[in-house]
Amino acid sequence: MTSNRLPTLGFVGIGVMGRSMAGHLLEAGYPLHIYNRTRSKADALVSQGARWQDSPADVAKASDIVITIIGFPTDVEAAYLGPEGIIANAKPGSILIDMTTSSPKLAQQIAEAASALQLQALDAPVSGGDLGAREARLSIMVGGEESTFDQVKPIFEVMGKNIVYQGPAGSGQHTKMANQVAIASGMLGVCEAVAYAERSGLDANRVLESISSGAAGSWSLSNLAPRIIKGDFNPGFFVKHFIKDMTIALQEADDMGLDFPGLTAAREAYEKLAASGGEDLGTQGLYKLYQASE
Amino acid sequence: MTSNRLPTLGFVGIGVMGRSMAGHLLEAGYPLHIYNRTRSKADALVSQGARWQDSPADVAKASDIVITIIGFPTDVEAAYLGPEGIIANAKPGSILIDMTTSSPKLAQQIAEAASALQLQALDAPVSGGDLGAREARLSIMVGGEESTFDQVKPIFEVMGKNIVYQGPAGSGQHTKMANQVAIASGMLGVCEAVAYAERSGLDANRVLESISSGAAGSWSLSNLAPRIIKGDFNPGFFVKHFIKDMTIALQEADDMGLDFPGLTAAREAYEKLAASGGEDLGTQGLYKLYQASE
Repeated sequence: MTSNRLPTLGFVGIGVMGRSMAGHLLEAGYPLHIYNRTRSKADALVSQGARWQDSPADVAKASDIVITIIGFPTDVEAAYLGPEGIIANAKPGSILIDMTTSSPKLAQQIAEAASALQLQALDAPVSGGDLGAREARLSIMVGGEESTFDQVKPIFEVMGKNIVYQGPAGSGQHTKMANQVAIASGMLGVCEAVAYAERSGLDANRVLESISSGAAGSWSLSNLAPRIIKGDFNPGFFVKHFIKDMTIALQEADDMGLDFPGLTAAREAYEKLAASGGEDLGTQGLYKLYQASE
Repeated sequence: MTSNRLPTLGFVGIGVMGRSMAGHLLEAGYPLHIYNRTRSKADALVSQGARWQDSPADVAKASDIVITIIGFPTDVEAAYLGPEGIIANAKPGSILIDMTTSSPKLAQQIAEAASALQLQALDAPVSGGDLGAREARLSIMVGGEESTFDQVKPIFEVMGKNIVYQGPAGSGQHTKMANQVAIASGMLGVCEAVAYAERSGLDANRVLESISSGAAGSWSLSNLAPRIIKGDFNPGFFVKHFIKDMTIALQEADDMGLDFPGLTAAREAYEKLAASGGEDLGTQGLYKLYQASE
Protein backbone atom coordinates (compact mmCIF):
# COMPACT_ATOMS: atom_id res chain seq x y z
CA MET A 1 0.00 0.00 0.00
CA THR A 2 1.15 3.53 -0.64
CA SER A 3 0.31 6.68 1.22
CA ASN A 4 -1.55 7.98 -1.82
CA ARG A 5 -4.38 5.49 -1.87
CA LEU A 6 -6.32 4.01 1.02
CA PRO A 7 -5.34 0.40 1.78
CA THR A 8 -7.87 -2.34 1.12
CA LEU A 9 -9.38 -3.58 4.36
CA GLY A 10 -10.84 -6.89 5.40
CA PHE A 11 -13.31 -7.16 8.25
CA VAL A 12 -14.27 -10.46 9.87
CA GLY A 13 -17.11 -10.45 12.40
CA ILE A 14 -20.16 -8.35 11.58
CA GLY A 15 -21.86 -8.48 14.97
CA VAL A 16 -23.29 -5.67 17.09
CA MET A 17 -19.87 -4.03 17.33
CA GLY A 18 -18.45 -5.04 13.96
CA ARG A 19 -21.28 -3.76 11.82
CA SER A 20 -20.89 -0.22 13.19
CA MET A 21 -17.10 -0.31 13.03
CA ALA A 22 -17.02 -1.71 9.48
CA GLY A 23 -19.70 0.79 8.50
CA HIS A 24 -17.52 3.71 9.59
CA LEU A 25 -14.58 2.34 7.58
CA LEU A 26 -16.77 2.02 4.52
CA GLU A 27 -18.05 5.58 4.94
CA ALA A 28 -14.46 6.78 5.30
CA GLY A 29 -13.82 5.44 1.79
CA TYR A 30 -11.84 2.28 2.48
CA PRO A 31 -12.36 -0.58 0.01
CA LEU A 32 -13.78 -3.29 2.30
CA HIS A 33 -14.02 -7.08 2.11
CA ILE A 34 -16.16 -8.70 4.76
CA TYR A 35 -17.04 -12.09 6.18
CA ASN A 36 -19.38 -13.18 8.96
CA ARG A 37 -20.49 -16.62 10.12
CA THR A 38 -24.13 -15.62 9.64
CA ARG A 39 -24.17 -14.09 6.18
CA SER A 40 -27.48 -12.22 6.55
CA LYS A 41 -25.96 -9.92 9.17
CA ALA A 42 -23.60 -8.62 6.48
CA ASP A 43 -26.33 -7.79 3.94
CA ALA A 44 -26.66 -4.13 4.89
CA LEU A 45 -22.92 -3.53 4.53
CA VAL A 46 -22.81 -5.36 1.20
CA SER A 47 -25.63 -3.14 -0.07
CA GLN A 48 -23.52 -0.15 1.01
CA GLY A 49 -20.59 -1.35 -1.09
CA ALA A 50 -18.67 -3.89 0.98
CA ARG A 51 -17.51 -7.02 -0.91
CA TRP A 52 -18.67 -10.33 0.55
CA GLN A 53 -16.07 -13.12 0.92
CA ASP A 54 -16.81 -16.74 1.79
CA SER A 55 -14.21 -17.24 4.53
CA PRO A 56 -11.66 -15.42 6.69
CA ALA A 57 -9.00 -16.86 4.37
CA ASP A 58 -10.68 -15.26 1.35
CA VAL A 59 -10.90 -11.93 3.19
CA ALA A 60 -7.18 -12.19 3.97
CA LYS A 61 -6.30 -12.96 0.34
CA ALA A 62 -8.12 -9.82 -0.83
CA SER A 63 -6.92 -7.32 1.83
CA ASP A 64 -3.88 -5.28 2.91
CA ILE A 65 -5.13 -5.01 6.47
CA VAL A 66 -7.41 -7.54 8.15
CA ILE A 67 -9.53 -6.61 11.16
CA THR A 68 -11.36 -9.18 13.29
CA ILE A 69 -13.85 -8.88 16.14
CA ILE A 70 -15.40 -12.28 16.71
CA GLY A 71 -16.60 -13.47 20.09
CA PHE A 72 -14.54 -16.02 21.96
CA PRO A 73 -10.80 -16.86 22.01
CA THR A 74 -11.53 -20.24 20.39
CA ASP A 75 -13.11 -18.34 17.47
CA VAL A 76 -10.07 -16.07 17.24
CA GLU A 77 -7.76 -19.06 17.23
CA ALA A 78 -9.79 -20.76 14.50
CA ALA A 79 -9.86 -17.60 12.38
CA TYR A 80 -6.12 -16.88 12.57
CA LEU A 81 -4.27 -20.17 12.94
CA GLY A 82 -4.19 -23.34 10.84
CA PRO A 83 -4.08 -23.87 7.06
CA GLU A 84 -7.47 -22.22 6.50
CA GLY A 85 -6.61 -19.29 8.78
CA ILE A 86 -5.95 -15.63 8.13
CA ILE A 87 -2.21 -15.90 8.75
CA ALA A 88 -1.62 -18.73 6.26
CA ASN A 89 -3.61 -16.88 3.62
CA ALA A 90 -2.64 -13.25 4.16
CA LYS A 91 -0.88 -11.29 1.41
CA PRO A 92 2.83 -10.61 2.05
CA GLY A 93 3.30 -7.63 4.35
CA SER A 94 -0.28 -7.60 5.58
CA ILE A 95 -1.26 -6.15 8.93
CA LEU A 96 -3.63 -8.25 11.06
CA ILE A 97 -5.62 -6.57 13.83
CA ASP A 98 -7.68 -8.56 16.30
CA MET A 99 -10.13 -6.31 18.13
CA THR A 100 -11.89 -9.17 19.94
CA THR A 101 -11.51 -9.14 23.74
CA SER A 102 -9.46 -12.28 23.98
CA SER A 103 -6.54 -13.95 25.72
CA PRO A 104 -3.23 -12.04 25.98
CA LYS A 105 -1.36 -15.30 25.50
CA LEU A 106 -3.26 -16.05 22.29
CA ALA A 107 -2.47 -12.53 21.08
CA GLN A 108 1.23 -13.20 21.63
CA GLN A 109 0.94 -16.54 19.86
CA ILE A 110 -0.77 -14.92 16.86
CA ALA A 111 1.86 -12.17 16.75
CA GLU A 112 4.64 -14.78 16.68
CA ALA A 113 2.97 -16.87 13.99
CA ALA A 114 2.39 -13.71 11.94
CA SER A 115 5.92 -12.50 12.40
CA ALA A 116 7.32 -15.85 11.17
CA LEU A 117 5.60 -15.11 7.83
CA GLN A 118 6.68 -11.44 7.69
CA LEU A 119 3.19 -10.30 8.69
CA GLN A 120 2.47 -7.80 11.42
CA ALA A 121 -0.18 -8.43 14.07
CA LEU A 122 -1.78 -6.11 16.62
CA ASP A 123 -4.16 -6.89 19.47
CA ALA A 124 -6.55 -3.98 19.80
CA PRO A 125 -9.59 -4.72 21.97
CA VAL A 126 -12.07 -1.95 22.59
CA SER A 127 -14.36 -0.63 25.27
CA GLY A 128 -17.37 1.60 24.84
CA GLY A 129 -19.99 -0.95 23.84
CA ASP A 130 -22.43 -0.87 20.94
CA LEU A 131 -23.11 2.82 21.54
CA GLY A 132 -19.39 3.67 21.43
CA ALA A 133 -19.07 1.65 18.22
CA ARG A 134 -22.06 3.40 16.66
CA GLU A 135 -20.79 6.84 17.59
CA ALA A 136 -17.17 6.04 16.63
CA ARG A 137 -15.90 6.90 20.09
CA LEU A 138 -14.52 3.57 21.23
CA SER A 139 -11.55 3.35 23.52
CA ILE A 140 -8.97 1.23 21.65
CA MET A 141 -6.11 -0.41 23.58
CA VAL A 142 -3.32 -1.58 21.36
CA GLY A 143 -0.52 -4.12 21.71
CA GLY A 144 2.15 -5.04 19.13
CA GLU A 145 4.97 -3.25 17.33
CA GLU A 146 4.69 0.50 17.79
CA SER A 147 5.64 1.16 14.15
CA THR A 148 2.73 -1.02 13.05
CA PHE A 149 0.45 0.89 15.40
CA ASP A 150 1.59 4.17 13.83
CA GLN A 151 0.81 2.83 10.34
CA VAL A 152 -2.79 1.90 11.14
CA LYS A 153 -3.62 4.67 13.60
CA PRO A 154 -5.70 6.55 10.99
CA ILE A 155 -7.88 3.44 10.71
CA PHE A 156 -8.36 3.29 14.48
CA GLU A 157 -9.28 6.96 14.39
CA VAL A 158 -12.21 6.18 12.12
CA MET A 159 -13.65 3.86 14.80
CA GLY A 160 -12.58 5.35 18.11
CA LYS A 161 -11.60 8.37 20.14
CA ASN A 162 -9.32 7.23 22.94
CA ILE A 163 -6.61 5.30 21.11
CA VAL A 164 -3.63 4.31 23.25
CA TYR A 165 -0.58 2.22 22.35
CA GLN A 166 0.03 0.03 25.39
CA GLY A 167 3.15 -2.00 24.52
CA PRO A 168 4.26 -5.28 22.89
CA ALA A 169 1.94 -8.04 21.64
CA GLY A 170 -0.67 -8.95 24.25
CA SER A 171 -0.59 -5.52 25.90
CA GLY A 172 -3.87 -4.47 24.36
CA GLN A 173 -5.53 -7.57 25.77
CA HIS A 174 -3.86 -7.11 29.15
CA THR A 175 -5.17 -3.53 29.29
CA LYS A 176 -8.67 -4.70 28.47
CA MET A 177 -8.36 -7.33 31.20
CA ALA A 178 -7.37 -4.62 33.71
CA ASN A 179 -10.51 -2.77 32.57
CA GLN A 180 -12.71 -5.80 33.16
CA VAL A 181 -11.07 -6.48 36.53
CA ALA A 182 -11.98 -2.96 37.68
CA ILE A 183 -15.56 -3.36 36.43
CA ALA A 184 -16.10 -6.80 38.00
CA SER A 185 -15.81 -5.88 41.68
CA GLY A 186 -17.31 -2.49 40.95
CA MET A 187 -20.52 -4.18 39.78
CA LEU A 188 -20.67 -6.15 43.03
CA GLY A 189 -20.43 -2.86 44.89
CA VAL A 190 -23.14 -1.20 42.80
CA CYS A 191 -25.57 -4.12 43.16
CA GLU A 192 -24.93 -4.40 46.88
CA ALA A 193 -25.38 -0.66 47.39
CA VAL A 194 -28.71 -0.66 45.55
CA ALA A 195 -29.84 -3.81 47.39
CA TYR A 196 -28.87 -2.20 50.70
CA ALA A 197 -30.76 0.98 49.84
CA GLU A 198 -33.91 -0.82 48.72
CA ARG A 199 -33.98 -3.27 51.60
CA SER A 200 -33.46 -0.60 54.24
CA GLY A 201 -36.55 1.17 52.95
CA LEU A 202 -34.83 4.11 51.27
CA ASP A 203 -35.79 5.60 47.92
CA ALA A 204 -32.91 4.17 45.88
CA ASN A 205 -33.00 6.96 43.29
CA ARG A 206 -32.72 9.54 46.04
CA VAL A 207 -29.78 7.60 47.47
CA LEU A 208 -28.10 7.87 44.06
CA GLU A 209 -28.58 11.65 44.28
CA SER A 210 -26.56 11.61 47.48
CA ILE A 211 -23.82 9.20 46.49
CA SER A 212 -23.28 9.26 42.71
CA SER A 213 -21.17 12.38 42.55
CA GLY A 214 -18.82 11.59 45.44
CA ALA A 215 -16.21 8.99 46.34
CA ALA A 216 -18.65 6.15 45.62
CA GLY A 217 -19.25 7.48 42.12
CA SER A 218 -18.61 5.33 39.07
CA TRP A 219 -19.75 4.85 35.51
CA SER A 220 -21.66 1.78 36.65
CA LEU A 221 -23.38 3.63 39.49
CA SER A 222 -24.41 6.48 37.19
CA ASN A 223 -25.40 4.37 34.19
CA LEU A 224 -26.41 0.93 35.42
CA ALA A 225 -27.84 1.55 38.91
CA PRO A 226 -30.76 3.59 37.49
CA ARG A 227 -31.54 0.70 35.12
CA ILE A 228 -31.39 -1.75 38.03
CA ILE A 229 -33.84 0.38 40.00
CA LYS A 230 -36.21 0.42 37.01
CA GLY A 231 -35.87 -3.37 36.69
CA ASP A 232 -34.22 -3.03 33.27
CA PHE A 233 -31.76 -5.88 32.87
CA ASN A 234 -31.46 -5.69 29.09
CA PRO A 235 -27.96 -6.23 27.77
CA GLY A 236 -25.58 -3.41 27.07
CA PHE A 237 -22.90 -6.01 27.70
CA PHE A 238 -23.88 -9.69 28.03
CA VAL A 239 -23.29 -11.65 31.24
CA LYS A 240 -21.92 -14.58 29.18
CA HIS A 241 -19.27 -12.40 27.54
CA PHE A 242 -18.31 -10.84 30.85
CA ILE A 243 -17.84 -14.30 32.35
CA LYS A 244 -15.52 -15.14 29.42
CA ASP A 245 -13.44 -12.03 30.16
CA MET A 246 -13.31 -12.63 33.92
CA THR A 247 -12.24 -16.21 33.30
CA ILE A 248 -9.33 -15.08 31.11
CA ALA A 249 -8.35 -12.40 33.64
CA LEU A 250 -8.44 -14.79 36.60
CA GLN A 251 -6.33 -17.31 34.68
CA GLU A 252 -3.78 -14.62 33.80
CA ALA A 253 -3.75 -13.31 37.39
CA ASP A 254 -3.24 -16.82 38.65
CA ASP A 255 -0.36 -17.33 36.22
CA MET A 256 1.21 -14.12 37.56
CA GLY A 257 0.84 -15.31 41.15
CA LEU A 258 -1.85 -12.78 42.02
CA ASP A 259 -4.75 -13.56 44.34
CA PHE A 260 -7.84 -11.47 43.46
CA PRO A 261 -10.59 -11.90 46.05
CA GLY A 262 -12.82 -9.29 44.40
CA LEU A 263 -12.61 -10.78 40.92
CA THR A 264 -13.04 -14.27 42.35
CA ALA A 265 -16.20 -13.23 44.21
CA ALA A 266 -17.53 -11.42 41.14
CA ARG A 267 -16.99 -14.34 38.79
CA GLU A 268 -18.56 -16.72 41.28
CA ALA A 269 -21.61 -14.46 41.51
CA TYR A 270 -21.91 -14.15 37.72
CA GLU A 271 -21.53 -17.93 37.27
CA LYS A 272 -24.39 -18.36 39.73
CA LEU A 273 -26.47 -15.89 37.75
CA ALA A 274 -25.69 -17.67 34.47
CA ALA A 275 -26.52 -21.05 36.02
CA SER A 276 -29.95 -19.72 36.94
CA GLY A 277 -30.64 -18.64 33.36
CA GLY A 278 -29.17 -15.12 33.38
CA GLU A 279 -26.39 -15.46 30.82
CA ASP A 280 -28.15 -13.31 28.22
CA LEU A 281 -28.91 -10.49 30.64
CA GLY A 282 -26.84 -7.33 30.78
CA THR A 283 -24.13 -7.25 33.43
CA GLN A 284 -26.42 -5.22 35.72
CA GLY A 285 -28.56 -8.38 35.86
CA LEU A 286 -26.27 -9.41 38.71
CA TYR A 287 -28.76 -7.53 40.86
CA LYS A 288 -31.20 -10.43 40.43
CA LEU A 289 -29.07 -12.48 42.80
CA TYR A 290 -29.70 -9.93 45.53
CA GLN A 291 -33.42 -9.88 44.79
CA ALA A 292 -33.51 -13.65 44.98
CA SER A 293 -32.40 -13.51 48.61
CA GLU A 294 -35.34 -11.24 49.49
CA MET B 1 -35.04 30.70 68.37
CA THR B 2 -36.74 33.12 66.00
CA SER B 3 -36.20 33.67 62.32
CA ASN B 4 -34.76 37.12 63.02
CA ARG B 5 -31.64 36.06 64.82
CA LEU B 6 -29.31 33.16 64.09
CA PRO B 7 -29.74 30.26 66.53
CA THR B 8 -26.91 29.47 68.91
CA LEU B 9 -25.05 26.38 67.81
CA GLY B 10 -23.10 23.76 69.69
CA PHE B 11 -20.44 21.68 68.00
CA VAL B 12 -18.94 18.55 69.54
CA GLY B 13 -15.97 16.93 67.80
CA ILE B 14 -13.26 19.23 66.47
CA GLY B 15 -11.34 16.72 64.38
CA VAL B 16 -10.17 16.92 60.77
CA MET B 17 -13.76 17.26 59.57
CA GLY B 18 -15.25 19.12 62.52
CA ARG B 19 -12.76 21.95 62.61
CA SER B 20 -13.53 22.96 59.02
CA MET B 21 -17.28 22.54 59.43
CA ALA B 22 -17.40 24.48 62.71
CA GLY B 23 -15.14 27.10 61.17
CA HIS B 24 -17.62 27.71 58.34
CA LEU B 25 -20.48 28.07 60.83
CA LEU B 26 -18.47 30.60 62.81
CA GLU B 27 -17.66 32.57 59.67
CA ALA B 28 -21.34 32.53 58.76
CA GLY B 29 -22.02 34.39 62.00
CA TYR B 30 -23.52 31.71 64.20
CA PRO B 31 -22.80 31.99 67.94
CA LEU B 32 -20.88 28.77 68.58
CA HIS B 33 -20.16 26.66 71.67
CA ILE B 34 -17.65 23.89 71.18
CA TYR B 35 -16.23 20.84 72.91
CA ASN B 36 -13.59 18.31 71.94
CA ARG B 37 -11.97 15.46 73.85
CA THR B 38 -8.53 16.91 73.12
CA ARG B 39 -8.91 20.58 74.00
CA SER B 40 -5.87 21.84 72.12
CA LYS B 41 -7.50 20.95 68.79
CA ALA B 42 -10.18 23.54 69.56
CA ASP B 43 -7.75 26.41 70.28
CA ALA B 44 -7.84 27.91 66.80
CA LEU B 45 -11.64 28.06 66.77
CA VAL B 46 -11.72 29.58 70.27
CA SER B 47 -9.33 32.29 69.13
CA GLN B 48 -11.73 32.94 66.24
CA GLY B 49 -14.62 33.48 68.65
CA ALA B 50 -16.04 30.08 69.54
CA ARG B 51 -16.91 29.55 73.22
CA TRP B 52 -15.24 26.55 74.87
CA GLN B 53 -17.40 24.26 77.02
CA ASP B 54 -16.13 21.49 79.28
CA SER B 55 -18.45 18.69 78.16
CA PRO B 56 -21.06 17.72 75.58
CA ALA B 57 -23.65 18.34 78.31
CA ASP B 58 -22.42 21.91 78.78
CA VAL B 59 -22.52 22.48 75.03
CA ALA B 60 -26.10 21.22 75.00
CA LYS B 61 -27.12 23.50 77.88
CA ALA B 62 -25.81 26.54 76.00
CA SER B 63 -27.16 25.81 72.48
CA ASP B 64 -30.37 25.77 70.43
CA ILE B 65 -28.94 23.29 67.95
CA VAL B 66 -26.21 20.75 68.76
CA ILE B 67 -24.06 19.22 66.04
CA THR B 68 -21.76 16.25 66.64
CA ILE B 69 -19.15 14.50 64.51
CA ILE B 70 -17.12 12.21 66.72
CA GLY B 71 -15.56 8.99 65.53
CA PHE B 72 -17.15 5.72 66.55
CA PRO B 73 -20.73 4.66 67.42
CA THR B 74 -19.66 4.02 71.01
CA ASP B 75 -18.54 7.66 71.21
CA VAL B 76 -21.86 8.80 69.76
CA GLU B 77 -23.75 6.70 72.27
CA ALA B 78 -21.71 8.12 75.15
CA ALA B 79 -22.19 11.70 73.95
CA TYR B 80 -25.97 11.47 73.50
CA LEU B 81 -27.35 8.95 75.99
CA GLY B 82 -27.15 8.67 79.79
CA PRO B 83 -27.41 11.33 82.50
CA GLU B 84 -24.33 13.23 81.34
CA GLY B 85 -25.42 13.07 77.70
CA ILE B 86 -26.60 15.71 75.26
CA ILE B 87 -30.23 14.54 75.32
CA ALA B 88 -30.60 14.74 79.11
CA ASN B 89 -29.05 18.21 79.15
CA ALA B 90 -30.45 19.83 76.02
CA LYS B 91 -32.65 22.93 76.26
CA PRO B 92 -36.36 22.34 75.56
CA GLY B 93 -37.06 22.23 71.83
CA SER B 94 -33.44 21.79 70.84
CA ILE B 95 -32.44 20.13 67.58
CA LEU B 96 -29.68 17.52 67.79
CA ILE B 97 -27.75 16.61 64.64
CA ASP B 98 -25.29 13.75 64.56
CA MET B 99 -23.03 13.98 61.51
CA THR B 100 -20.80 11.09 62.53
CA THR B 101 -20.92 8.05 60.22
CA SER B 102 -22.53 5.69 62.69
CA SER B 103 -25.07 2.92 63.13
CA PRO B 104 -28.58 3.41 61.67
CA LYS B 105 -30.03 1.58 64.67
CA LEU B 106 -28.27 3.92 67.10
CA ALA B 107 -29.59 6.88 65.12
CA GLN B 108 -33.13 5.54 65.55
CA GLN B 109 -32.52 4.98 69.25
CA ILE B 110 -31.24 8.54 69.69
CA ALA B 111 -34.22 9.93 67.76
CA GLU B 112 -36.62 8.05 70.04
CA ALA B 113 -34.87 9.14 73.22
CA ALA B 114 -34.85 12.74 71.95
CA SER B 115 -38.48 12.62 70.95
CA ALA B 116 -39.50 11.41 74.41
CA LEU B 117 -38.13 14.70 75.77
CA GLN B 118 -39.69 16.85 73.01
CA LEU B 119 -36.33 17.24 71.31
CA GLN B 120 -35.75 16.69 67.61
CA ALA B 121 -32.87 14.58 66.33
CA LEU B 122 -31.42 14.17 62.83
CA ASP B 123 -28.77 11.77 61.55
CA ALA B 124 -26.78 13.57 58.89
CA PRO B 125 -23.54 11.83 57.96
CA VAL B 126 -21.41 13.33 55.23
CA SER B 127 -19.14 12.32 52.40
CA GLY B 128 -16.49 14.39 50.70
CA GLY B 129 -13.62 13.99 53.15
CA ASP B 130 -11.42 16.64 54.68
CA LEU B 131 -11.19 18.51 51.37
CA GLY B 132 -14.98 18.58 51.01
CA ALA B 133 -15.25 19.85 54.58
CA ARG B 134 -12.63 22.54 53.96
CA GLU B 135 -14.28 23.71 50.76
CA ALA B 136 -17.81 23.50 52.23
CA ARG B 137 -18.97 21.12 49.52
CA LEU B 138 -19.79 18.04 51.54
CA SER B 139 -22.57 15.70 50.51
CA ILE B 140 -24.97 15.56 53.51
CA MET B 141 -27.44 12.67 53.79
CA VAL B 142 -30.20 13.37 56.26
CA GLY B 143 -32.61 11.18 58.23
CA GLY B 144 -35.29 12.28 60.72
CA GLU B 145 -38.44 14.41 60.57
CA GLU B 146 -38.63 16.34 57.32
CA SER B 147 -39.91 19.48 59.09
CA THR B 148 -36.81 19.43 61.29
CA PHE B 149 -34.64 19.03 58.21
CA ASP B 150 -36.32 22.08 56.64
CA GLN B 151 -35.60 24.12 59.77
CA VAL B 152 -31.87 23.44 59.79
CA LYS B 153 -31.25 23.26 56.04
CA PRO B 154 -29.61 26.74 56.04
CA ILE B 155 -27.05 25.38 58.50
CA PHE B 156 -26.31 22.38 56.31
CA GLU B 157 -25.89 24.76 53.39
CA VAL B 158 -23.04 26.48 55.19
CA MET B 159 -21.13 23.18 55.30
CA GLY B 160 -22.17 21.31 52.18
CA LYS B 161 -23.42 21.40 48.62
CA ASN B 162 -25.34 18.19 47.96
CA ILE B 163 -27.88 18.12 50.78
CA VAL B 164 -30.55 15.44 50.45
CA TYR B 165 -33.34 14.49 52.84
CA GLN B 166 -33.46 10.69 52.76
CA GLY B 167 -36.31 9.72 55.08
CA PRO B 168 -37.10 8.90 58.73
CA ALA B 169 -34.53 8.54 61.52
CA GLY B 170 -31.64 6.30 60.47
CA SER B 171 -32.07 7.04 56.76
CA GLY B 172 -29.07 9.33 56.66
CA GLN B 173 -26.91 6.57 58.14
CA HIS B 174 -28.41 3.96 55.83
CA THR B 175 -27.58 6.19 52.85
CA LYS B 176 -24.01 6.60 54.03
CA MET B 177 -23.78 2.82 54.45
CA ALA B 178 -24.96 2.34 50.84
CA ASN B 179 -22.18 4.78 49.88
CA GLN B 180 -19.56 2.78 51.78
CA VAL B 181 -20.86 -0.50 50.35
CA ALA B 182 -20.37 0.83 46.81
CA ILE B 183 -16.87 2.05 47.66
CA ALA B 184 -15.76 -1.18 49.37
CA SER B 185 -15.93 -3.56 46.42
CA GLY B 186 -14.95 -0.75 44.08
CA MET B 187 -11.62 -0.42 45.93
CA LEU B 188 -10.99 -4.14 45.48
CA GLY B 189 -11.54 -3.66 41.76
CA VAL B 190 -9.22 -0.64 41.56
CA CYS B 191 -6.41 -2.35 43.47
CA GLU B 192 -6.77 -5.54 41.46
CA ALA B 193 -6.79 -3.64 38.16
CA VAL B 194 -3.61 -1.75 39.08
CA ALA B 195 -1.95 -4.94 40.35
CA TYR B 196 -2.90 -6.70 37.12
CA ALA B 197 -1.51 -3.86 35.01
CA GLU B 198 1.77 -3.64 36.93
CA ARG B 199 2.36 -7.38 37.07
CA SER B 200 1.65 -7.92 33.40
CA GLY B 201 4.38 -5.41 32.57
CA LEU B 202 2.17 -2.57 31.41
CA ASP B 203 2.70 1.11 32.21
CA ALA B 204 -0.09 1.47 34.79
CA ASN B 205 -0.55 5.19 34.15
CA ARG B 206 -1.00 4.53 30.46
CA VAL B 207 -3.55 1.85 31.30
CA LEU B 208 -5.47 4.47 33.29
CA GLU B 209 -5.49 6.65 30.14
CA SER B 210 -7.27 3.82 28.34
CA ILE B 211 -9.72 2.78 31.03
CA SER B 212 -10.50 5.73 33.34
CA SER B 213 -13.03 7.44 31.11
CA GLY B 214 -15.03 4.37 30.12
CA ALA B 215 -17.22 1.76 31.80
CA ALA B 216 -14.47 0.94 34.33
CA GLY B 217 -14.29 4.58 35.38
CA SER B 218 -14.83 5.61 38.99
CA TRP B 219 -13.88 8.29 41.47
CA SER B 220 -11.50 5.79 43.06
CA LEU B 221 -9.87 4.89 39.76
CA SER B 222 -9.37 8.56 38.85
CA ASN B 223 -8.32 9.79 42.29
CA LEU B 224 -6.77 6.89 44.18
CA ALA B 225 -5.21 4.71 41.46
CA PRO B 226 -2.69 7.45 40.52
CA ARG B 227 -1.68 7.68 44.20
CA ILE B 228 -1.32 3.89 44.36
CA ILE B 229 0.95 3.95 41.31
CA LYS B 230 3.09 6.65 42.95
CA GLY B 231 3.24 4.58 46.16
CA ASP B 232 1.34 7.27 48.09
CA PHE B 233 -0.74 5.53 50.75
CA ASN B 234 -1.32 8.59 52.94
CA PRO B 235 -4.79 8.84 54.40
CA GLY B 236 -7.56 10.75 52.75
CA PHE B 237 -9.81 8.34 54.60
CA PHE B 238 -8.34 5.99 57.24
CA VAL B 239 -8.44 2.21 56.88
CA LYS B 240 -9.55 1.89 60.53
CA HIS B 241 -12.57 4.13 59.97
CA PHE B 242 -13.50 2.34 56.78
CA ILE B 243 -13.41 -0.99 58.64
CA LYS B 244 -15.79 0.51 61.23
CA ASP B 245 -18.21 1.51 58.47
CA MET B 246 -18.02 -1.82 56.64
CA THR B 247 -18.63 -3.63 59.91
CA ILE B 248 -21.80 -1.62 60.55
CA ALA B 249 -22.96 -2.13 56.96
CA LEU B 250 -22.35 -5.89 57.05
CA GLN B 251 -24.23 -6.18 60.34
CA GLU B 252 -27.18 -4.22 58.92
CA ALA B 253 -27.12 -6.26 55.69
CA ASP B 254 -27.08 -9.43 57.72
CA ASP B 255 -30.04 -8.22 59.80
CA MET B 256 -31.91 -7.54 56.55
CA GLY B 257 -31.15 -11.05 55.27
CA LEU B 258 -28.77 -9.85 52.57
CA ASP B 259 -25.65 -11.76 51.57
CA PHE B 260 -22.94 -9.39 50.26
CA PRO B 261 -19.98 -11.32 48.82
CA GLY B 262 -18.24 -8.15 47.63
CA LEU B 263 -18.48 -6.33 50.94
CA THR B 264 -17.49 -9.50 52.79
CA ALA B 265 -14.38 -9.92 50.63
CA ALA B 266 -13.51 -6.23 51.00
CA ARG B 267 -13.80 -6.19 54.77
CA GLU B 268 -11.78 -9.39 55.01
CA ALA B 269 -9.04 -7.80 52.90
CA TYR B 270 -9.04 -4.58 54.96
CA GLU B 271 -8.95 -6.56 58.22
CA LYS B 272 -5.91 -8.38 56.87
CA LEU B 273 -4.30 -5.05 56.01
CA ALA B 274 -5.05 -3.64 59.48
CA ALA B 275 -3.68 -6.78 61.13
CA SER B 276 -0.40 -6.24 59.29
CA GLY B 277 -0.12 -2.67 60.59
CA GLY B 278 -2.02 -0.78 57.91
CA GLU B 279 -4.90 0.67 59.92
CA ASP B 280 -3.62 4.25 59.70
CA LEU B 281 -3.09 4.15 55.94
CA GLY B 282 -5.55 5.65 53.50
CA THR B 283 -8.07 3.25 51.99
CA GLN B 284 -5.93 2.97 48.84
CA GLY B 285 -3.37 1.25 51.09
CA LEU B 286 -5.30 -1.92 50.32
CA TYR B 287 -2.95 -2.16 47.35
CA LYS B 288 -0.18 -3.23 49.73
CA LEU B 289 -1.85 -6.63 50.04
CA TYR B 290 -1.38 -7.16 46.32
CA GLN B 291 2.23 -6.05 46.49
CA ALA B 292 2.84 -8.47 49.34
CA SER B 293 1.95 -11.38 47.07
CA GLU B 294 4.62 -10.34 44.57
